[in-house]
Amino acid sequence: MMKKRVAILGATGAVGQEFLLSLENHPWFEVTQLAASERSAGKKYIDAIRDPNSGIIKWQVGGDVPKYARDMMVTSIDQVKVSDLDLVFSAVESDAARDIETKFAKDIPVVSTSSAYRYEEDVPILIPGINDDHVELIEAQKKNRNWKGYVLPLPNCTTTGLAITMKPLYDTYGAKKVIMTSMQAISGAGRSPGVSALDVTDNLIPYIPKEEGKVRVETAKILGKLKDGKIIPADIRVSCTCTRVPVIDGHTESVFVETSKTAKLDDVKHTISEFSDHISVTGLPSAPKDYLVVHEDPTRPQPRIDRQINDGMTTSIGRLEEDTIFDNGVKYVLFSHNKKMGSAKGAVLLAEMLYKKGKI
Amino acid sequence: MMKKRVAILGATGAVGQEFLLSLENHPWFEVTQLAASERSAGKKYIDAIRDPNSGIIKWQVGGDVPKYARDMMVTSIDQVKVSDLDLVFSAVESDAARDIETKFAKDIPVVSTSSAYRYEEDVPILIPGINDDHVELIEAQKKNRNWKGYVLPLPNCTTTGLAITMKPLYDTYGAKKVIMTSMQAISGAGRSPGVSALDVTDNLIPYIPKEEGKVRVETAKILGKLKDGKIIPADIRVSCTCTRVPVIDGHTESVFVETSKTAKLDDVKHTISEFSDHISVTGLPSAPKDYLVVHEDPTRPQPRIDRQINDGMTTSIGRLEEDTIFDNGVKYVLFSHNKKMGSAKGAVLLAEMLYKKGKI
Amino acid sequence: MMKKRVAILGATGAVGQEFLLSLENHPWFEVTQLAASERSAGKKYIDAIRDPNSGIIKWQVGGDVPKYARDMMVTSIDQVKVSDLDLVFSAVESDAARDIETKFAKDIPVVSTSSAYRYEEDVPILIPGINDDHVELIEAQKKNRNWKGYVLPLPNCTTTGLAITMKPLYDTYGAKKVIMTSMQAISGAGRSPGVSALDVTDNLIPYIPKEEGKVRVETAKILGKLKDGKIIPADIRVSCTCTRVPVIDGHTESVFVETSKTAKLDDVKHTISEFSDHISVTGLPSAPKDYLVVHEDPTRPQPRIDRQINDGMTTSIGRLEEDTIFDNGVKYVLFSHNKKMGSAKGAVLLAEMLYKKGKI
Amino acid sequence: MMKKRVAILGATGAVGQEFLLSLENHPWFEVTQLAASERSAGKKYIDAIRDPNSGIIKWQVGGDVPKYARDMMVTSIDQVKVSDLDLVFSAVESDAARDIETKFAKDIPVVSTSSAYRYEEDVPILIPGINDDHVELIEAQKKNRNWKGYVLPLPNCTTTGLAITMKPLYDTYGAKKVIMTSMQAISGAGRSPGVSALDVTDNLIPYIPKEEGKVRVETAKILGKLKDGKIIPADIRVSCTCTRVPVIDGHTESVFVETSKTAKLDDVKHTISEFSDHISVTGLPSAPKDYLVVHEDPTRPQPRIDRQINDGMTTSIGRLEEDTIFDNGVKYVLFSHNKKMGSAKGAVLLAEMLYKKGKI
Repeated sequence: MMKKRVAILGATGAVGQEFLLSLENHPWFEVTQLAASERSAGKKYIDAIRDPNSGIIKWQVGGDVPKYARDMMVTSIDQVKVSDLDLVFSAVESDAARDIETKFAKDIPVVSTSSAYRYEEDVPILIPGINDDHVELIEAQKKNRNWKGYVLPLPNCTTTGLAITMKPLYDTYGAKKVIMTSMQAISGAGRSPGVSALDVTDNLIPYIPKEEGKVRVETAKILGKLKDGKIIPADIRVSCTCTRVPVIDGHTESVFVETSKTAKLDDVKHTISEFSDHISVTGLPSAPKDYLVVHEDPTRPQPRIDRQINDGMTTSIGRLEEDTIFDNGVKYVLFSHNKKMGSAKGAVLLAEMLYKKGKI
Repeated sequence: MMKKRVAILGATGAVGQEFLLSLENHPWFEVTQLAASERSAGKKYIDAIRDPNSGIIKWQVGGDVPKYARDMMVTSIDQVKVSDLDLVFSAVESDAARDIETKFAKDIPVVSTSSAYRYEEDVPILIPGINDDHVELIEAQKKNRNWKGYVLPLPNCTTTGLAITMKPLYDTYGAKKVIMTSMQAISGAGRSPGVSALDVTDNLIPYIPKEEGKVRVETAKILGKLKDGKIIPADIRVSCTCTRVPVIDGHTESVFVETSKTAKLDDVKHTISEFSDHISVTGLPSAPKDYLVVHEDPTRPQPRIDRQINDGMTTSIGRLEEDTIFDNGVKYVLFSHNKKMGSAKGAVLLAEMLYKKGKI
Repeated sequence: MMKKRVAILGATGAVGQEFLLSLENHPWFEVTQLAASERSAGKKYIDAIRDPNSGIIKWQVGGDVPKYARDMMVTSIDQVKVSDLDLVFSAVESDAARDIETKFAKDIPVVSTSSAYRYEEDVPILIPGINDDHVELIEAQKKNRNWKGYVLPLPNCTTTGLAITMKPLYDTYGAKKVIMTSMQAISGAGRSPGVSALDVTDNLIPYIPKEEGKVRVETAKILGKLKDGKIIPADIRVSCTCTRVPVIDGHTESVFVETSKTAKLDDVKHTISEFSDHISVTGLPSAPKDYLVVHEDPTRPQPRIDRQINDGMTTSIGRLEEDTIFDNGVKYVLFSHNKKMGSAKGAVLLAEMLYKKGKI
Repeated sequence: MMKKRVAILGATGAVGQEFLLSLENHPWFEVTQLAASERSAGKKYIDAIRDPNSGIIKWQVGGDVPKYARDMMVTSIDQVKVSDLDLVFSAVESDAARDIETKFAKDIPVVSTSSAYRYEEDVPILIPGINDDHVELIEAQKKNRNWKGYVLPLPNCTTTGLAITMKPLYDTYGAKKVIMTSMQAISGAGRSPGVSALDVTDNLIPYIPKEEGKVRVETAKILGKLKDGKIIPADIRVSCTCTRVPVIDGHTESVFVETSKTAKLDDVKHTISEFSDHISVTGLPSAPKDYLVVHEDPTRPQPRIDRQINDGMTTSIGRLEEDTIFDNGVKYVLFSHNKKMGSAKGAVLLAEMLYKKGKI
């Protein structure tokens, strides 16, 4: 089999590095081009991430730089040869992402972790296993824009866990209101400059700029229905407060849901378990053994334990209870790994789903 | 003026130590007896808190042991001379608290941080400034039980901030539902053994045993009405999830409220400000300059900053917004110091209020 | 090949759990018996580590309980059948360890993480790859004590990194003085009760009871020479200060060494590299790819990065420099994983070495 | 009494803010001018530290902006009116400091926390109470440079604690070698960008660029003798390794000293106690009650406890022991508050000493 040729845009940053890891020894995809800013262009990857003053390799995602990438030449994003590619993964920061992704989508598919295109009418926000059917919206997108390719963005990493856990609940019981408080990891803020240790040691910060609006809009869109070439957002009212806590990796969210129908605890557990067992992504190379797990142990999920499960691709639910303040409702705590399922590796899983559907 | 003579029960523990601090140079109260377990009895206070192996003084609450207490003799709780006292502060652990507080209440007032009596029908849960009128229930209590004294417990430290912030909202706009997620400090779990550093470093724990039930019941009781010698709990439905985060002192709570009436943001701010300005405790020795503050800075409240304000006696609100998922509603984040307003110093403030009312 | 049958004593504790992990799918050893206290006896392993109140599985070392162990019956230590065993791993706490290890050593080899026997004249303290020749002391031990088996203890986990890094230096350049300050992980203090989060959050504790004396004695013994059936301790003067810092796993040590001979930086690097390349443990199942590495990056070693290298079996050196305050000397910072090379997995590596030497 | 008129250069940064705090209600000094960069010039202080996007007041040092400073107009450093000043405190970052301090010193005294002038031959590095006699070097400085004013820098904050604790030891016992490992607070790295939470949570970093060289040179200079218009550095060999640990404020240092003469433990304690009791700064407004304390409790000093003592102006020693690896020697652990005695408030104390000596 010929592997699909992929490029990583923004390959030197933290998200780009996660892409490199996620694509190491991939059975279907081969990284044939690495692109970054002008400053990195013309260097070997290993040199491009080397600190020019200290000579230190700035590899931020654990372990070693994958062998396949060490000596690859980094090009500037302008110099990427689209004709030699089947797919582009974009890890570009959001300000620049719009123009860059537009340029590539004219010719080939772009799977992106940036927010640039998330709120466009003809662009779905995709979580593989959750709203695969929205993929069809790309046909409208290509047509509208007269593109040969398309752009498919992942959601914000805080939306990911909420939308995944809400999917079986929403489909089975309906959902009128969702009230969520997040306790988000510092790695979610990146490194330029990211969160200062002075701000988050023995402390928490009850505010993450723009985060709450994203979660509200994206959750309704992901759980919405594709109809007549448009997504009708789910009729859910979402309210949330997003906080930053001194945890390295992995977002925890405390969720209260008013359902439309009675949601008995045992039924809910069964529903979630069935959902996870029959998830569409089963068998894809990056799919976890368990898509969604429910912990009986009331002290779970915990970030330091649950982030390690299935390389961060499993979403965990704990503290699941019926919530009697609503006529019908449940409450729970979820954990989702913001650097794995919520970012590059989730994007690779998405690309695998696209490949299976013949969209790449 | 003759100062009222008070004893501290459980004087050697962390809460007892906070009592010692809170009563240093108190204008109305004089600590005349210190009581603890048999093991400490017959020792000077400074020796009673000395580790027998290492000789180290186990003073856990910052600064030095107050001078007045250093050389006081500690008695066993059995040996406390009730006839020489006007008031008892109880910092006894909850298992033993029931019997001990009962014994003292037969003769004199007991102000307690334990939960032993909180859920009795003829026992109010008091927060000075919030439900002072519930004090009158002690007359029924004394009569029912044929006591000369009475027991007045503080609420659980997680309830304190919620009840204080809900009071002006409830009185002005009504409240149908309250949904709260707490991010609680490790000092709330005490030291025997308290929270292990292995459990909470780079981590959080989404569960605190029994905490959520306490918050639900206590909040409704505190906001309830005293009528015909009974408290009719407020008709509020409270749901909450309590978590432990790596923060030393001070509980943060993310709150969503469905109000009965329209609650416009500016009105709400005005309401809270008015409430704080006219709080009944103004002028009491332990009362803070600001009872309740609303931060405009969206990054506040933060535990490491806000715990220092007014020696931990001010409750802080931030992120105050109208919440559109309810027909009427608001959302906010609160901060309350679990070792100060939520514990011993709050109990001293309560005693000051009782004194002013002639109940001591 | 028939695998050697081994028992784990103290199988339910944190060190015992590390033993279970380290022996999963082991090519030479098969865990045939698990022993713990009376309280656990007669239960399946999975039930023995279940919290009786909450039903929670107390597996403390990451991932899941290895399948092979889940349903094994736990016996009390008294009931272990020695005749069905070739080797015992002891993870028993030090107070009880003396009697228990004595009992087993009468019949079979005991490899131990406890300190019970470390300071006996006829007992070597072994680090595989460092002082393998000391193994011969067990013949004297068996004869002296009229035992069929023997006891071989690992060093204290703080000694491990120091002795490993000092070995090539001492052999090549001699060492007059070693001055060390450790920054030790909280996992080193265990969980009963271990380090309180209140003591180590935003803080460090400059004292670990008895640790410094252990490091002094053990380092000299490990680097000593076996002669006439005795170990002559190395003629090194060691001084150290041991501190506890808010790091989960892995001890960092800042070391200053006065050598006997000139130690040029490049030579020292070469010496260490040669030493690691020709280490005796190469090829043993638990041996790491790199026994000892020298980082050029001055920001390494760092606990959170270096603890992951080679599953915690590699000892890392950084900041290596000539130290001009001595006539001859070097300074460096080392990192050693206290739960892996410094504990159970190090003990398994030791047993592998013994097996190769025909001592099991 | 007319107060001396002082300006703070760099008044909007973290060190500048500490200066503002340290000079609030000062009996001898009155802050009459605040200077910062062009960006802040022409604004009220409260507006100059306001984030232009969010409107948030960036006051980083606890509590509130002192009232006296809120409405003062900030000028650019170029616009400061030297003729209206008696003294300048410089909190300017080191790159710019050289030119700025030079300009002011031509006319008036400059007390500085920057390193710009520390290593000049005619510039002493002063710690009040330690080497007050070095002040006389300013006469040579003024003459050499033909200045009416002078520059007096504080040492690096890591040097401060080491030099203070070494002073009584060096004077009484001599000191051949000093070997030190620091565990430094994250606040020492400032905020632009300072230490990332990703780098120091559950971690430590064994390297602080340029720090070790500063400590070596400065310690010898501070303990040196002023002779013939020059400082002859003390004949001490200093080696150190500086690390960053997850502690907010306060540097801890583990120190090993080879003394020239026998240093018996009781004598050493007595020596230190005498030294602290007769310290020259006694009675100055910013001087602490205890200049230097020796803890008997082996778990002290601890940053979170000791940073609060005497508002961070006391240097603490613990773990004091004779060190037998030297013919004569002691070892100890020290704590020094890097933001208080090691920075702005230490600079104010220095200015108080200068005032008393008639140098301002």
